Amino acid sequence: MKAVILRGALKEEHIKKIEETAAKAKVDVCFLDSEKELPEDYEDAEIAYGFGMNIAKARKLRESKSLKWVNSTSAGIEMLLKPGFFANEDVLITNSAGAYGVSIAEHIIAVTLMMFRKIDYHYAESLQGHWAEQLSQKSLKDCRITALGTGDIGRTFAKRVRAFEPESLIGVSRSGKCSEDVFDRVVPVEQLDEVLPQTELLVMSLPGTRETEGILSRERIALMPQGAYVVNVGRGSAVDEEALADALDGGKLAGAALDVFRYEPLPPKSRLWKTKGLLITPHVAGNMTLEHTVDKNVEMFCENLLNYAEGRPLKHLVDRKTGY
Amino acid sequence: MKAVILRGALKEEHIKKIEETAAKAKVDVCFLDSEKELPEDYEDAEIAYGFGMNIAKARKLRESKSLKWVNSTSAGIEMLLKPGFFANEDVLITNSAGAYGVSIAEHIIAVTLMMFRKIDYHYAESLQGHWAEQLSQKSLKDCRITALGTGDIGRTFAKRVRAFEPESLIGVSRSGKCSEDVFDRVVPVEQLDEVLPQTELLVMSLPGTRETEGILSRERIALMPQGAYVVNVGRGSAVDEEALADALDGGKLAGAALDVFRYEPLPPKSRLWKTKGLLITPHVAGNMTLEHTVDKNVEMFCENLLNYAEGRPLKHLVDRKTGY
Repeated sequence: MKAVILRGALKEEHIKKIEETAAKAKVDVCFLDSEKELPEDYEDAEIAYGFGMNIAKARKLRESKSLKWVNSTSAGIEMLLKPGFFANEDVLITNSAGAYGVSIAEHIIAVTLMMFRKIDYHYAESLQGHWAEQLSQKSLKDCRITALGTGDIGRTFAKRVRAFEPESLIGVSRSGKCSEDVFDRVVPVEQLDEVLPQTELLVMSLPGTRETEGILSRERIALMPQGAYVVNVGRGSAVDEEALADALDGGKLAGAALDVFRYEPLPPKSRLWKTKGLLITPHVAGNMTLEHTVDKNVEMFCENLLNYAEGRPLKHLVDRKTGY
Repeated sequence: MKAVILRGALKEEHIKKIEETAAKAKVDVCFLDSEKELPEDYEDAEIAYGFGMNIAKARKLRESKSLKWVNSTSAGIEMLLKPGFFANEDVLITNSAGAYGVSIAEHIIAVTLMMFRKIDYHYAESLQGHWAEQLSQKSLKDCRITALGTGDIGRTFAKRVRAFEPESLIGVSRSGKCSEDVFDRVVPVEQLDEVLPQTELLVMSLPGTRETEGILSRERIALMPQGAYVVNVGRGSAVDEEALADALDGGKLAGAALDVFRYEPLPPKSRLWKTKGLLITPHVAGNMTLEHTVDKNVEMFCENLLNYAEGRPLKHLVDRKTGY
């Protein structure tokens, strides 16, 4: 059995761990710096590990009927699910949802507090050498928070933000349930419109699926209280960007932090760059730039490599119907 | 009995609460927008409440032997303690240490995560319309944290940052003790040099006293590990600013966030404005710009107003010897 590993952010310690696990699992592994280097004797590999975008570029692997399992180091893998994308229509696809919770939860709290405390403004002023006047601030204490998405990201965020003593912390999920007891209550997405009027901070961590497309619509933004805040770290497609920009420019929303966008990189001419109170980060909340994320990612893959070799079901398998 | 209240950030609800408490305590109160408006019949007031700097400017009160109790809405009150500052040398001075914990703890976590996750860089780039490359990040998870100062600020920070799962969380205090069990361990300040080599993030929340002057010296910065971070929200006098700037420009420290400075406002020509990796905020971590802070501040004053009227000891009394 052969596996191709696109190295990406892997360090020596990670490679060593994968090599040891592969030896146990009796899998031959080949580590590549680029998908372009694929050696001929690995074109019929059964397993591919790497960043989804890079696996997508490895044409020889995509076109091989031998490819049985693709492990994407990212959580969002929309592209890999397109019908006909892999020659083997039954290829198993696992993602790395679960590896990014810590990184993304820290990002959410960072950008929220930056906005609440006007540190974005003070920092911009400081770059000009200005000692600016104080502005009114908002606190996570006694804040009414709604997490739209109660997966690993939503739950890891909830556990951290709880320590800041919010007034309420509501989860919204497809099922209306959550695998851990970390929210005050969890409601099904059908009740989203009922919780929005009480939501001062809306944190979105949804996958990019047909069901989440445009879920934060113009009508839903209008349901939020005056001066509310939005943070999106899931997929850009979940937000009506024009409606969000209108709500910020018009003063309905006090601030928004977007790490993901409908089109990435965000086009230079996008109005979002100039939208009032919009904090833009270039899709960095959950990349493999945090050591903990890479460690966790490799740990999850190694566990699955043993599962695969020994015929046990894989964890983190993506459901082609729901898209996550 | 008469009290003068300098309104500052007080809202109608706060004034109402003070009026009700004063009626119970049988104290006549006079609310002023500026210390310049002091009416003649309040020049012999026994009680003064307001921002320390503004009380200092109320010459008639300072020179009155009738003044028995000064309540400063800030926590730092160095100026009010100068010998001869008040005509009544026995004037009781209370500060508002305890009102700022929530606000300042949120500030500490905001600036720490901004630095750890390079959001300062990404935000500055976004202001130019640039979608920047990812940079390596650092996490609060598994981070070794030392809080220099275990008062209300240090403890409120510890309770929040604990949820981020640091590897260690050590408190350093004068006594080596802490009133709440929120640190892994608390050591006396004499052992500071022993904990610095294991400190990836040093959070300073010390009052401005002779003992804290220059406590983060060039020698102590040298004891910290390569790539460590410093956050100071206490008093600027506690840091050797030149040594800190050298350590940042030289790459010894990966980042520092200062909200307080030896001279405020920070002079336009200060090298700190241009120091690499230094995040400057204009003393906004703990001002009365957060509603919660004002609420808490008024609550503490009202409790003390009843204590005073009924002859009970005052809380938050400043010890002239230690200076806090």
